[in-house]
Order: sequence, then structure tokens, then C-alpha cells
Amino acid sequence: MSDIESKFVLPKRYEGSEKSVWVEYIQLALEYKPLNLGQGFPDYPPPEYITNALSKVANGENYMVHQYTRGFHFQNFIQKKIGREINPETEILTTLGAYEALFSTITGHVDEGDEVIIIEPFFDCYEPMVRYAGGIPRFIPLRSKDVSNSRPSSADWVLDKDELAGLFNNKTKAIILNTPNNPLGKVFTEQELIHIADLCKKWNVLCISDEVYEWIVYKPNKHIRIATLPGMWERTITIGSAGKTFSVTGWKLGWAYGPANLMVNLQMIHQNSVYTGVTPIQEAAAIGFEKELKRLDDDESYFVSLARELESKRNFMANFLSDVGMKPIVPEGGYFMIADWSPLESKVDLNSEKDKYKDYRFTKWMTKNIGLQGIPPTAFYSKPNKSLAENLVRYCFIKKDQNLEEAASILRKWKAGNN
Amino acid sequence: MSDIESKFVLPKRYEGSEKSVWVEYIQLALEYKPLNLGQGFPDYPPPEYITNALSKVANGENYMVHQYTRGFHFQNFIQKKIGREINPETEILTTLGAYEALFSTITGHVDEGDEVIIIEPFFDCYEPMVRYAGGIPRFIPLRSKDVSNSRPSSADWVLDKDELAGLFNNKTKAIILNTPNNPLGKVFTEQELIHIADLCKKWNVLCISDEVYEWIVYKPNKHIRIATLPGMWERTITIGSAGKTFSVTGWKLGWAYGPANLMVNLQMIHQNSVYTGVTPIQEAAAIGFEKELKRLDDDESYFVSLARELESKRNFMANFLSDVGMKPIVPEGGYFMIADWSPLESKVDLNSEKDKYKDYRFTKWMTKNIGLQGIPPTAFYSKPNKSLAENLVRYCFIKKDQNLEEAASILRKWKAGNN
Repeated sequence: MSDIESKFVLPKRYEGSEKSVWVEYIQLALEYKPLNLGQGFPDYPPPEYITNALSKVANGENYMVHQYTRGFHFQNFIQKKIGREINPETEILTTLGAYEALFSTITGHVDEGDEVIIIEPFFDCYEPMVRYAGGIPRFIPLRSKDVSNSRPSSADWVLDKDELAGLFNNKTKAIILNTPNNPLGKVFTEQELIHIADLCKKWNVLCISDEVYEWIVYKPNKHIRIATLPGMWERTITIGSAGKTFSVTGWKLGWAYGPANLMVNLQMIHQNSVYTGVTPIQEAAAIGFEKELKRLDDDESYFVSLARELESKRNFMANFLSDVGMKPIVPEGGYFMIADWSPLESKVDLNSEKDKYKDYRFTKWMTKNIGLQGIPPTAFYSKPNKSLAENLVRYCFIKKDQNLEEAASILRKWKAGNN
Repeated sequence: MSDIESKFVLPKRYEGSEKSVWVEYIQLALEYKPLNLGQGFPDYPPPEYITNALSKVANGENYMVHQYTRGFHFQNFIQKKIGREINPETEILTTLGAYEALFSTITGHVDEGDEVIIIEPFFDCYEPMVRYAGGIPRFIPLRSKDVSNSRPSSADWVLDKDELAGLFNNKTKAIILNTPNNPLGKVFTEQELIHIADLCKKWNVLCISDEVYEWIVYKPNKHIRIATLPGMWERTITIGSAGKTFSVTGWKLGWAYGPANLMVNLQMIHQNSVYTGVTPIQEAAAIGFEKELKRLDDDESYFVSLARELESKRNFMANFLSDVGMKPIVPEGGYFMIADWSPLESKVDLNSEKDKYKDYRFTKWMTKNIGLQGIPPTAFYSKPNKSLAENLVRYCFIKKDQNLEEAASILRKWKAGNN
């Protein structure tokens, strides 16, 4: 290594950093141009009123929407859902995507040596964010109940109560909850949340509740905000996303809310990393929130109609995955489906890929040879538990019906050709 | 303190954090509604083509501009300016504002115990960003030459060559350069940059070059990119801003460029804090860059016309500040002016404010009693050197002529009333 190369390596706290699965799989998609059921975003237009709102804001009379913003007040919306007032100055922070909200929350609270409990499978950024803050992740997997269910559901995946209780100790700073869960689609029940809440209260632990899929829950399941359970507001930071809410993942508008004494830590990180939000985006989202607030929970509400629309896409996908021999786990929320592909292993040349984990090899082989891309779920597990996910694949179903039909057709043809 | 309060304080690495001057002064402006020459943003419309671009992008045919982006390729523009090709995948990073570019650069390169040289006055986020990364800031002030010049210029403020050389040592990881400088407006000359470059090469030091005001340089001064000096590309990360470039500070679109081996560090931080940019904003800026690329350096180029327009605003402000008895330092670049207000000290009741530094008391008193707001420049100095700036104030002149005239009128009336 030259002097420059050796001196300018990553700081020690980032040693062992890896490129995220997204970087690799987005590159793969660009190269092979498969039908892409990988990354989680809609491939069809967002609601017209929201894109029109941005268009109007951009060349509207108030040209100051193009300059620095001071804030973004949409707390009415959240207040209705959680049944308490929120101080817009001290109890909510607008962030550059829910991703930055997670970063500000984790970096603002986790100190050197703090333990953070992470439930597996987990959105992949949780682990590096905790490690870079000097924290020690303690993992606990959701485990599949031994069910003879012919159509397993994400509800069959549960935490072992004793195993969870055993992770809490005096060093535990926080637990990260994600409901509905990505990638599994599990919607935690009230009983499950009460168990977590009781442990948080017993051990004086912060609950970081990632609820970005809060609107996408399939009946009869209900999204419950853990911050609304008794004694939990004062120890919970809840994270949400306008990108998921309005199907505009490219807007990078998120938020975190919680009690003022917990939020000051986030403000400090936010102030020293990105500082302000994107004014025209915030203004356009504010118009969207105002519209939806008036029809909250009505049938014509976008959030209600989105979940309805996605439910039929979900069912369609579960059927065609079953038809070709995979074993899908039907999600209760979110827009991802995990499926066990191992019944098809004999049809796949896993040795043609060099990756350590079988799901990476399966998904790469499928992308290159069959033209259908999914995401390898071991990316959502800690190293010791990756074996739990090697037989799985994650597909996203917030896609045009036409593309889902195309995916079904690709798989059916493949199966027919190999039989 | 309750259990919750004591357990959830800021992590140790953020101890001693302070609210930034912006939080306090934006709040002050909201409360007293002065004529605001504080924060640096235009109070008049950005060029129409850029806001129209965003409007059209928002409800145009390509609805995928509302979903996750993978990148933003505008390197043609920079390539022309630096005379070398840039690999869009590895040598440039699009960030959520130049602020995030600074954060990713500093956090991605500064390790525990590394020394970082910061030239004073400096944009106030440099210091906390270096400290949070575990670095040790080493400050060196630009010092005013003893000139009998009746109209001093930012060119009169220089680094002492020996003092600068004495700061470099084996622990020096980086130097942060800001040209044109905020708040002083100094545009570093080629000779000055060569001296800095030679020291960087001698000590194998990274140069972080914050050039967000690169387009706003007044004749006959020229903006020189230190990355273009011999041997400097391989050790320089240059930071720019679409917010400054197109007068849309609320768009939060910035970038950093440099050699691939230095950029990987930034990518790692970016990937783990915000991850992606705002797609419609990037698309709209791309349209702007394409338009400007065709007429680069022509008279009708926005960047040329912006500097021309600002030069007359600058001269107008320098005149009215002199007229009322302040001593302005005429900037060679940027849109801020530093002025010495101490000749007016007898007209101000500094004791009515409680702040430690006189410039805070002066600016607060002026906001509350005279209705004109500036920013206290001690915010841009390290603690030991704050005394150098107590007699100064920073005003922003990228404001409507009408508002600059109003500022002049406010000051003249004040002076007359007190005489």
C-alpha cells in the first residue's frame, strides 16, 4: 500500500464494514435486467394528488419553499393515532427518510458498550448502526412454530418468551422493534407487545419502534403502536415514513417521535449530520397529510385503499409461489413475502455461484438464468443465525399486476421446462 | 433525575454538545420578526427554469422519479472545471446537502486521536463533526494584515505561513479548507493554495475542500480548485452544493468528489446514515446542470449572472455599513459580509443581554431594539480565539434590493436618532 492508501483507511470503528446487500443487488439488476421483485418500491405511479402537490409547490407563488426549512408540522396526524398531543418543537423530528431517523435514534442513544436487542430477521441497517455507535447487538430470532399448516403465515413466527427475557440485563440500552416486520411481514399482536413492554419497563430500556409499514396491515390484523401501551410513551421512539405512507420512496421524508427528553439526543445528531430537511418535499407531503387527515380510516383513504389493493397482490403471489413448489409465508403486513425455495433446489445450479450462503447463490442464479430477482434473507440475520434463512428468498409485491403475472409466468415456464 | 433521565443522556462522545447558533437565531427571528440578514439564503425567487424543472419532473411521464434513486450523474459539469474525467460510480458521491457531504467526509476519515487543522473563521459545523469522530481540531486564524486601507477586503486576511507549517505533524490527518470562505468571503489565491498543498504533500495529509460558494466569486478574483494543483487530486475531497449553485438552499442536494480510494470511506458513512438521495430533486437539478453546461462561462450563464447581480448588492451593503460608521470587510466571494461594529458600541446597551461574547449581545440587542438581524461571528471561532471576533457581525446580502435598502434605512434612522 502507498502512504496515501495506508493512512486513509476507514477509521477503526468501521472496520469490518461490508457493502450492503442493496448495493450488490441493485448492480446485479442493472447488469442482468431481470424482472425485479427485489428492492421494496412500487413500480407504478403514486397517488396523483401527491405528485401534483409537489408539482404545484415547486412553481407556486410561495417561492420561499425552495429555501431552508425550519420544520414540518404534521403532528395532527400522529396525535389522532396515538391519542395524545405532540409538541411539534420538542417531541417530533423530521428526518431525511426513516433511514436517517433510525440513524439519529441509534447514534443519539447508544453509547460504547451498551447492549441493543435486535429481533431477527431485521432491516439490515440496524446492525451496522448499532456497531458504529459502539454498541453490542444481542440477537433473537423469530422462530417458526412447528405447524402442519399448509399455508403458513407470518403469525406463526414468534419470539420465545424466556429467550427474550434472558437477553435483558443491566447493560441493555434499547430494543429495536419493527412492526409490521420487514422482511417477514409479521404484525406483532397486543399480547406480544405487552410482553416486550413489560421487559422494557422492568429493565428501564428504550424501545425503538420502526413502524414504517404502519398503514400496510391486512385484515383482521391490527397495527398497534407500542408507544400507546401503559408506561411506554416515556421510553419509546417511534419511526415513520412518508415514502411508505404515500408510495414515494424517493422523497426521503421520515420522522421520529417520542418524549422530549429522549428526542433531544436525536436532534443533536440530526443537527450535526444533515441539519435540515428538503423544503418542497415537506410542503408537498403536508398537503397529502392534510387531505388524508380528513378521511382517515374511511374507505377512500389512500392508506385503506393501498392495503386493500396490496392484499390481492399478496394473495396472487402466495398462490403462484405455491404453484411452482415454493413454500410462501403469507405476511400479515408490509409488502414483502418470504418463501422457502428449497423444494426447488434440484433445479438450481448452486455451484455456479461462489457466495457463502445458499440464498445468495439461489437469488443470483435465478437473476442470471431465469430472469427473476429476489433478495437473499440471510442479509437480515446476524452471522450466527444466517443458517436459519439460507433456504429463503424475499420477494416484493408492490408491483404492477402485469409484472406479478409475468413473474408467475416466468416461474411456471421454468418449472415446466425442468420437469 | 429519574431512572429514564439519567440512563438516556447523550452518549459520552457528544458530551459538551451545544445548540448551534442557527437554532438560537432562527428562533430569535421568529420571535422578534426583524429584517433578517442572518441565515444565508436568498429571499427572492430562484431561476424560473430550475423551479419549473422540479414542477415538471414531479408530474411528468416518468413516475419512477418518485422512487428510490441509484445515483445522480452530473459529473460532466465538474469534469469541465477540473480538467479530468470522473468515474460516476467511484469518484463522486451525491449527498443530502453539502452538510451531509462534510459529515460523511469527516466521519469517514477522522479516527480517534487524529488531528484536523481548521482555518478560522470556519463554518460552524466543522468543529463538532471533527470532535464527534474522535478527532482533535487544531485551529489557525486568518489574521488581518495591518493595513491603513480605508476599505479593507477579505484579501487582507491571511494565514501566517510559519504558524500553519507548525501545525502539521505526524498526527495530522486532514486540513479543512473553505474557499470562498464563509463568513469572511476570502478567496484563497493560487500562491496561498500552493503553500497549503505543499504542506499536505509533505505530511501526507488529506485536504477537505469545501467549495460550496465556488460560483460566487467577484472579479478580478478567481476560484481555484485545490484538487487541480499538482499532486493534490490524490489527496483532496472537494465538496459542492446545488443549493448554493442554483439558489435553492431548501433542496438539500450536495456532492463530494475525489479519488476512489478516499471516496469509499464516505460511501460507507452515507450508506449507514441516509443511504439514498431525493430522486425528484436530483432529476430537476440534472436538468439545471444540463442547461448550464451548454452556456458555461457565457454571460447569460446563471452562475455568471448571479455573481454579477451579487456584486452590486455587495457594494451597496459595504457603502451603507460604512455610512453608519461600521467597518465592513469587502468579500471577494460568497454572499456574506463581515463588519466591525465597535465604532457604534456607545449606541448599544450591551448590558441588556447576558451572553458571554459581545457580538452575541450586539446582534441580539440589534434584533430586539433596531429590528435588524445579523449573525455573531464568534460562532465561527474556537473558544480560545473567539476574542478575535467579538467586535464583528456577519450580514448576508443575497437579499432583495428592497430589503437591503430597508436595512440601510433602518441603520441610518438609528444612527440619526442617536446622534
